Amino acid sequence: MNFPTKKKTTNKINNKANLGMVLEDMINQTNEFYINANLAIIHKKPTPIQIVKVDYPMRSKAVITEAYYKTPSTTDYNGVYKGYYIDFEAKENHNKTLFPLRNIHPHQVKHLNQIVAHGGIGFLIVAWNHYNEFYLLPLDILNEFWNQAQDDGRKSIPYSIFKEKCIPIKEGYAPRLDYLKAVDILIKNQI
Amino acid sequence: MNFPTKKKTTNKINNKANLGMVLEDMINQTNEFYINANLAIIHKKPTPIQIVKVDYPMRSKAVITEAYYKTPSTTDYNGVYKGYYIDFEAKENHNKTLFPLRNIHPHQVKHLNQIVAHGGIGFLIVAWNHYNEFYLLPLDILNEFWNQAQDDGRKSIPYSIFKEKCIPIKEGYAPRLDYLKAVDILIKNQI
Repeated sequence: MNFPTKKKTTNKINNKANLGMVLEDMINQTNEFYINANLAIIHKKPTPIQIVKVDYPMRSKAVITEAYYKTPSTTDYNGVYKGYYIDFEAKENHNKTLFPLRNIHPHQVKHLNQIVAHGGIGFLIVAWNHYNEFYLLPLDILNEFWNQAQDDGRKSIPYSIFKEKCIPIKEGYAPRLDYLKAVDILIKNQI
Repeated sequence: MNFPTKKKTTNKINNKANLGMVLEDMINQTNEFYINANLAIIHKKPTPIQIVKVDYPMRSKAVITEAYYKTPSTTDYNGVYKGYYIDFEAKENHNKTLFPLRNIHPHQVKHLNQIVAHGGIGFLIVAWNHYNEFYLLPLDILNEFWNQAQDDGRKSIPYSIFKEKCIPIKEGYAPRLDYLKAVDILIKNQI
């Protein structure tokens, strides 16, 4: 609720990192709420790390002393809800008019399409930080703009498409970001 | 196919590590086969790492210089197969007569039970290295012995139970370890 304030008081790099954490934290808190309320079992996957060197100090636990962040090959979140396999990626967007598609890795789009082809539910959660708005971006809309990007150079989804075609997610206290309500609508629309 | 030979020629610690990798590698190869054959989308989750220190050398990518292995809060593998949410943990067993339950973290058993309660398919894959045999251990059998362990101190599942009640998984070339055949049997038994 207070990102716009935060945005003005911190420097740009920190701000981006903080806002990145905000959406992740909101979803993690929401997932914890869902697990405790016995509504869904959805977890964030660990960040993939390439480990190069590990030290084994005497009698204490192994210390990783050289490692690198790897590009994730799938998405950040997955789990089970009402028997459905749920799989999604969460993205912050700092732009006011467009959601640039360079935010998403090609293998993540491929992964989400594979998920849906096998009967799973795949989507993106996009935070528009400037408006403090959150949307579930269905995969078919992502695909439409993703495929256009290859042809005519358009590499983004306009804000208007989110307003018109995506499913809004309401921010709250508990759950923090009740995205399963949006998933219910997504499932209903698909049947 | 050649673990028993390997077992005799390497020292105990390396051997354990190697065999641990063998099952993981077999499952990873199998998952790759399943994805390429468009049969299922199942991935290993990254190992959870607690990052303590990160260096940012000039113009090169971030280097993690201090990090620790964390206890996983869920299982190693999950994904989607025929619309089902699939979730499992893979364990090597070096014992000849028993599968000790200390191999499994309590939160992993809890997690698998949550998964099944929400309509997912949860199980263990257990490798009996001495016999070079592989089994799908259904959750209800794990639960039975897990709950006994709390009461009367029994903390393992005998080999005979695997022979009699678990679903054997055949080792092969491609796929390396065709566990989806065992999952099909598990699903059929549950309906």
